[in-house]
Amino acid sequence: MPSIRPPRVVIIGAGFGGLSAAKSLAKGPFNVVLIDRYNYHMFQPLLYQVATAELSPADIAFPIRTVFRRKPNVSVMLATVSAIDAERNEVVAEGHRIPFDYLIVATGARQAYFGHNDWAQHAIGLKTIGDAVYLRNRILLAFERAETEPEERRRLLNFVVVGGGATGVELTGAIAELAKRTLAPDFRTINPSSARIVLVEAGPRLLRQFDESISRSAQRTLEQLGAEVRLGTAVTGCDEAGIAMGAERIETRTIMWSAGVEASPAGRWLGAETDRAGRVKVKPDLSLPGRPHIFVLGDTALVHGVGGEPLPGVAPVAKQQGTYVARVIAARAGGQPIAPFEYRDFGMLATIGRSHAVAQLGHVKLSGLLAWVLWCFAHIYFLIGFRSRLFVMLNWAWNFLSSRRGARLIIAMGGAPMTDMEHAEDRSGRTGRERA
Amino acid sequence: MPSIRPPRVVIIGAGFGGLSAAKSLAKGPFNVVLIDRYNYHMFQPLLYQVATAELSPADIAFPIRTVFRRKPNVSVMLATVSAIDAERNEVVAEGHRIPFDYLIVATGARQAYFGHNDWAQHAIGLKTIGDAVYLRNRILLAFERAETEPEERRRLLNFVVVGGGATGVELTGAIAELAKRTLAPDFRTINPSSARIVLVEAGPRLLRQFDESISRSAQRTLEQLGAEVRLGTAVTGCDEAGIAMGAERIETRTIMWSAGVEASPAGRWLGAETDRAGRVKVKPDLSLPGRPHIFVLGDTALVHGVGGEPLPGVAPVAKQQGTYVARVIAARAGGQPIAPFEYRDFGMLATIGRSHAVAQLGHVKLSGLLAWVLWCFAHIYFLIGFRSRLFVMLNWAWNFLSSRRGARLIIAMGGAPMTDMEHAEDRSGRTGRERA
Repeated sequence: MPSIRPPRVVIIGAGFGGLSAAKSLAKGPFNVVLIDRYNYHMFQPLLYQVATAELSPADIAFPIRTVFRRKPNVSVMLATVSAIDAERNEVVAEGHRIPFDYLIVATGARQAYFGHNDWAQHAIGLKTIGDAVYLRNRILLAFERAETEPEERRRLLNFVVVGGGATGVELTGAIAELAKRTLAPDFRTINPSSARIVLVEAGPRLLRQFDESISRSAQRTLEQLGAEVRLGTAVTGCDEAGIAMGAERIETRTIMWSAGVEASPAGRWLGAETDRAGRVKVKPDLSLPGRPHIFVLGDTALVHGVGGEPLPGVAPVAKQQGTYVARVIAARAGGQPIAPFEYRDFGMLATIGRSHAVAQLGHVKLSGLLAWVLWCFAHIYFLIGFRSRLFVMLNWAWNFLSSRRGARLIIAMGGAPMTDMEHAEDRSGRTGRERA
Repeated sequence: MPSIRPPRVVIIGAGFGGLSAAKSLAKGPFNVVLIDRYNYHMFQPLLYQVATAELSPADIAFPIRTVFRRKPNVSVMLATVSAIDAERNEVVAEGHRIPFDYLIVATGARQAYFGHNDWAQHAIGLKTIGDAVYLRNRILLAFERAETEPEERRRLLNFVVVGGGATGVELTGAIAELAKRTLAPDFRTINPSSARIVLVEAGPRLLRQFDESISRSAQRTLEQLGAEVRLGTAVTGCDEAGIAMGAERIETRTIMWSAGVEASPAGRWLGAETDRAGRVKVKPDLSLPGRPHIFVLGDTALVHGVGGEPLPGVAPVAKQQGTYVARVIAARAGGQPIAPFEYRDFGMLATIGRSHAVAQLGHVKLSGLLAWVLWCFAHIYFLIGFRSRLFVMLNWAWNFLSSRRGARLIIAMGGAPMTDMEHAEDRSGRTGRERA
């Protein structure tokens, strides 16, 4: 494959994995094409803060082209990939066929509903900026409607989060603070602090990747913020008016889903062997069996850690894999072998509310304010670009000092402009479903 | 009407007029209900900066409830008004009937196409946050598509703004800088600075409310930024592939419309006499003839200035009218008469690009950097809330120093979540129309 021209490396997906691979390859003699269906790289660990009106989308999204502004050997393409032609070494995207010498598939994961796809329309996921803005609309609109619709009030003021992982815990804490601190003084008829916020987890504890003592601390903190935590409770049904957990039912208009993900359909595109979650089984160097020039990484790949457990779908894994694959390709071009991928775990963090977090860094366990400060610094550090760092920091400072949220907008946007008739009726940000 | 309970004043619309009326009335013995179809007050003079990726929606939108957080006699209602029952003194909104002793109608204006309503789908207006985000998507997507679609390239890189008032001039300058400065280093195939940006004005000069010398200065500055200005040129047709001006045609995928507005349909709701632009003819105290307890103000009212010309639809007029009507109502409650409304004109400002503006303050005329500094301070001063001021200022500083834009996102948001199939295809922010 190597020839006189530099090898052409196509990367699908500009998440943490794809972006770190592209950055590493940009330094070498490669012609890199980075394809994404969005024009920005999104910092997913803070997506829940967009959903809870604390940050704006632009604070956590960075234009991909700008990252590679000074790297002439990297071109960026905005397109949605629909297939990979592994025989002809081409990626198919919106009528274009993009040839590659090496291919890196870093297409991430999406929400999964464990075979209950009909739940998706009632239980809102949180994987994209669009999801986050939609969820923000739904949460804020629930309080607005509770103010004017007495007969629906109880149902509108119940919020249920499904899944007690980091996203579920962080989302629950942020909604509890939104209701009990930010919104409380702003309404006249309802009392937003009477909102009931329930976190439902099927397993025996929250944050199961952390130590048990940390799980208990997280649960205590959520309860202090006024949220309810229901452990060992499996969801058995979701509809537009509530959620069922066996014999119990909670009436609610807002169900949030962070209970599971499945890999992107890349395994199908490649005709590759996958696990039940759709993750592609790769070789120790993250290449596809039988296709040494095709690599799969991040949430789309099934890679085992030193203990034999699959590596979790988190940013550090994807980033390290991106850098690793870039090294493999560079070594290949030079003909040298390279050791299998090994994940270096620097620890885990999760935040609960505006001054509490939990951290587990090897044998060191922290919880409370100190962990929260660490959490803030870590997230600021990993954000891309001076502007995002500054603006996220200032938003946090402002929220911390004022208890307000900077992005409390109910907004329907991005669609085609409406006719005047529709204008008069529909720009309040409500969808037909909510009006019904 | 006055009774033992405080008089109930209903205000429709939380724009500049409605908000200033509510703020003034909040200080008095009134029960105020402020109704808006959005949950935020929007600072319209900076809306074009959202459309050109410089600011985020949250920077120029402020939650209405938060403005009145400490005013227990003001309640805020998120609802779309559909009628006014002037016989029963009730406002009709989404099935609710809201009774009033006094009514203030401040429902603003919307884009008008001079009888060519079919142009609306091709020529994008700029009146709401939704419009601005849609326009931002369209502009950014045009460059992205030009990169991958050679046969459409020329048409995609032509941008036409119709209407040489303040919004048209500011929008044209911002797009020219976006293309020629911000985006230029970020593309590999196309050269964004080759984009053609044309401002079309039917009249003999730009900014006709200003002095002629200022019109010439504005035109010169736009031309220095690389935009074309076409005066005395009337649009005769808009379609999805271009714009016609008599015998001439410019092929383009992006037409922006800032050539005219018409008043909200409040005149129809009230059965009132209106002018051709739908503005309600009011008495010198801004009340409706025959209905002394109903007031109409801002872009929805036809009020004449000292010279006999109708007052322009700008923020200072609406704000002064809001305060004035609050005084009229307070005086009425006390039984005193009050002098007719008189507009105090403190001057006009318009900005062109990131370091140039024009200003006309009585007999003082300014253009260039000094006017721009004045423009910046004036706009920061009139923004609501510490957060908006800080964040807008920082965004400007960052844009000024880096030539980048803080909100370069192509994003479809606020809608219902999609199914997995749609997810894979449609979250790139493109509408069906653009794909076609």
